Amino acid sequence: MSLLEEAIQDLVSTEIIVAAKHENIEPDDLRELVALGRVVILRNRKRPVKIDPLAVGEGTRTKVNANIGTSEDSASVENELKKLTAAISAKADTVMDLSTGGDLDAIRKEIIAASTVPVGTVPIYEVAVNRRKAGKPVVDMHPDELFEVIEKQGEQGVDFLTVHCGVTSKVVETLLNSSRVMDIVSRGGAFHAEWIHKNKRENPLYEQFDRLCEIAKKYEMVLSLGDGLRPGAIADATDRSQIGELVVLGELVHRARELGVQAMVEGPGHVPIDDVMANIQIQKQICDNAPFYVLGPIVTDVAPGYDHITAAIGGAIASSSGADFLCYVTCNEHLSLPDVEAVRQGVIVTRIAAHVGDIAKDIPGAWEWDLKMSEARRELDWPKMLELAIDPELATEIREKSPPQEEDACTMCGQYCAVKTISNMRKDKKKG
Amino acid sequence: MSLLEEAIQDLVSTEIIVAAKHENIEPDDLRELVALGRVVILRNRKRPVKIDPLAVGEGTRTKVNANIGTSEDSASVENELKKLTAAISAKADTVMDLSTGGDLDAIRKEIIAASTVPVGTVPIYEVAVNRRKAGKPVVDMHPDELFEVIEKQGEQGVDFLTVHCGVTSKVVETLLNSSRVMDIVSRGGAFHAEWIHKNKRENPLYEQFDRLCEIAKKYEMVLSLGDGLRPGAIADATDRSQIGELVVLGELVHRARELGVQAMVEGPGHVPIDDVMANIQIQKQICDNAPFYVLGPIVTDVAPGYDHITAAIGGAIASSSGADFLCYVTCNEHLSLPDVEAVRQGVIVTRIAAHVGDIAKDIPGAWEWDLKMSEARRELDWPKMLELAIDPELATEIREKSPPQEEDACTMCGQYCAVKTISNMRKDKKKG
Repeated sequence: MSLLEEAIQDLVSTEIIVAAKHENIEPDDLRELVALGRVVILRNRKRPVKIDPLAVGEGTRTKVNANIGTSEDSASVENELKKLTAAISAKADTVMDLSTGGDLDAIRKEIIAASTVPVGTVPIYEVAVNRRKAGKPVVDMHPDELFEVIEKQGEQGVDFLTVHCGVTSKVVETLLNSSRVMDIVSRGGAFHAEWIHKNKRENPLYEQFDRLCEIAKKYEMVLSLGDGLRPGAIADATDRSQIGELVVLGELVHRARELGVQAMVEGPGHVPIDDVMANIQIQKQICDNAPFYVLGPIVTDVAPGYDHITAAIGGAIASSSGADFLCYVTCNEHLSLPDVEAVRQGVIVTRIAAHVGDIAKDIPGAWEWDLKMSEARRELDWPKMLELAIDPELATEIREKSPPQEEDACTMCGQYCAVKTISNMRKDKKKG
Repeated sequence: MSLLEEAIQDLVSTEIIVAAKHENIEPDDLRELVALGRVVILRNRKRPVKIDPLAVGEGTRTKVNANIGTSEDSASVENELKKLTAAISAKADTVMDLSTGGDLDAIRKEIIAASTVPVGTVPIYEVAVNRRKAGKPVVDMHPDELFEVIEKQGEQGVDFLTVHCGVTSKVVETLLNSSRVMDIVSRGGAFHAEWIHKNKRENPLYEQFDRLCEIAKKYEMVLSLGDGLRPGAIADATDRSQIGELVVLGELVHRARELGVQAMVEGPGHVPIDDVMANIQIQKQICDNAPFYVLGPIVTDVAPGYDHITAAIGGAIASSSGADFLCYVTCNEHLSLPDVEAVRQGVIVTRIAAHVGDIAKDIPGAWEWDLKMSEARRELDWPKMLELAIDPELATEIREKSPPQEEDACTMCGQYCAVKTISNMRKDKKKG
């Protein structure tokens, strides 16, 4: 039986107990959410190094994913392992290996072996890279090649898979009949669209969705239904292509559940700020409340170099509106592959966005963390403030760079510290 | 006649014509907004070096202010002038001189002389610093001292003044009867509260509000009605103390307008994400649509070192909900006085938040900027993308750090560029 099937049959598995403990919620409450498909549990049954199963979805802390992986221009395994370490130290909840350069199998094995958090992949990348290396056009791919790669990655211990099942012939037709500014910006989405267009055949991941589910079930891999048509410009947000694909993804969530397979749904992308909440509401409605995993959303196109911030704006609104899982965006987005420092910073900034949403969603512990910090501020308890900071290292560094004359204040206000003034007034009131 | 009185009498002044040109709106439309008090025009009549008048409020681009100024721990004029230059180069719309260290008069004169944008101050700081230097308790201040300082600063050319007129005896009583986590975090608010409490007298800025308006009118200074009780912890947001003060500020906006004086209102502060929009709506309603100048808002307390980002999240939502003017927050907030680089970065990040809101508010030119960038991305036109970036310098630096093999792609996707794939597909469709 799969985790989902067990949950439906009221069985509280060990995976659920462990995941519930991390969330500070009752195991049976989590079981019910899993049974309803509102929460998925990430952990491949065959994972070589055991990790704790991770809950993603309604009622749980908003999770943060860090994308790592080589490209043709930058294919060092060592560097990717450094990024992995940086991401985990910064408390990423998951990583995705999006490698497209070097020996993909070797890199993936090393990342899975070294990772203490769930690992996700995009299997179509491996097919595309292998074909290109062999000098064969990607568009001539036989569907079996893709399913074989998925099976192999399951065997290797991959915990969740981005699969662009919703890029159907019909959806591609909708796209080509529209006048989007950016068309497709998802690499996986582009591969499938090109394949469909050239071969005049249906997307194999859609046509043979049950076959995909069978493999996913065998390894207990979670399907992350990719949004190949996510908008790549705010002008394209929430258009027919995007929502057309989302409707297909909703149907596939339903089918996956029937087959005992856990599924989540990926989302935009580039979205203007006043569309973000609607995007979350639409996804939850159309996809029977499946967990929503969003990339950003980025709320303006004009800020390359600051897209960790444009994504934090969109991500915080998304999270507070019900998104469950934020894929980080680094400051390198739209410019180059991130380096180790960009990975670290990207994770922390995305954790801020996730936490801001968790306060609004009343996730256990979220509000309390802020309250502890505010109380430390009131007491001018600097060691405590630095300890409670989301990045104690950076906060300490900034503070130590300009030490104040009065140890309990800071160099901004010094003797004119409002907190001190009012604290004395309160004492005076008590006396009086 | 004051600018406001002229506007009410249907006179389109030169100030309005110049300010309207910068906003790409019709002068008479701007005049009407000024007449209604929904827009204020910043520029002291006696400013020694002429600058263009700046419109702040409904229908105009969301503006960004950078706080600069010395403290006792860091009192170099040269350094503050560097910050001024950094803020203006990064396209801050205004600066506020919040100096509390060194020779305040000299520093203010130098900043006003060097600034090409409107300059704001908080006059109570000067009174407090002068008294402290003279060894006299701040709480013994005579009201006349404060009005004399305000008059002098008007003469020096200050364009807008933060005046904590809403910190009344009643509001302080409300505060002391409540159990806030952080009480008061505004320095100006704390001075007034302490003065009121110790002297058992009403706030002179409230009691003699007409006298304040008379001075403001003489120099055409805009009153920025400060929120001395803004929440300093998300737990305190939107509470009786904050909203009680806001009601007083609303009454004072009304009175200022009667006296021909332009007024805007300052706002929070620390606010959880799901309260931000309500805060803007409440202010607009209570204050007869006076321009709203918000500090942040910061949406979580746990991220010192990243408060430019927590403020960008709150600021973007605030701006998109109708806030008109964002005071930047730097990464040093809650830790120390910012350095030059933090000022630069703070301005740009806050401009991103303002722009994100301007897209939602449909401000002329906002949407078009994003569209141009997206089109440049579609064309893989890298020089254009870098030129259109909000910070071309940083974007160029990141791109040049890891030059791609294929000049038209980037090191993230290389040959697997989705944009290229789909562009070829579109061409193929046209042929077919």
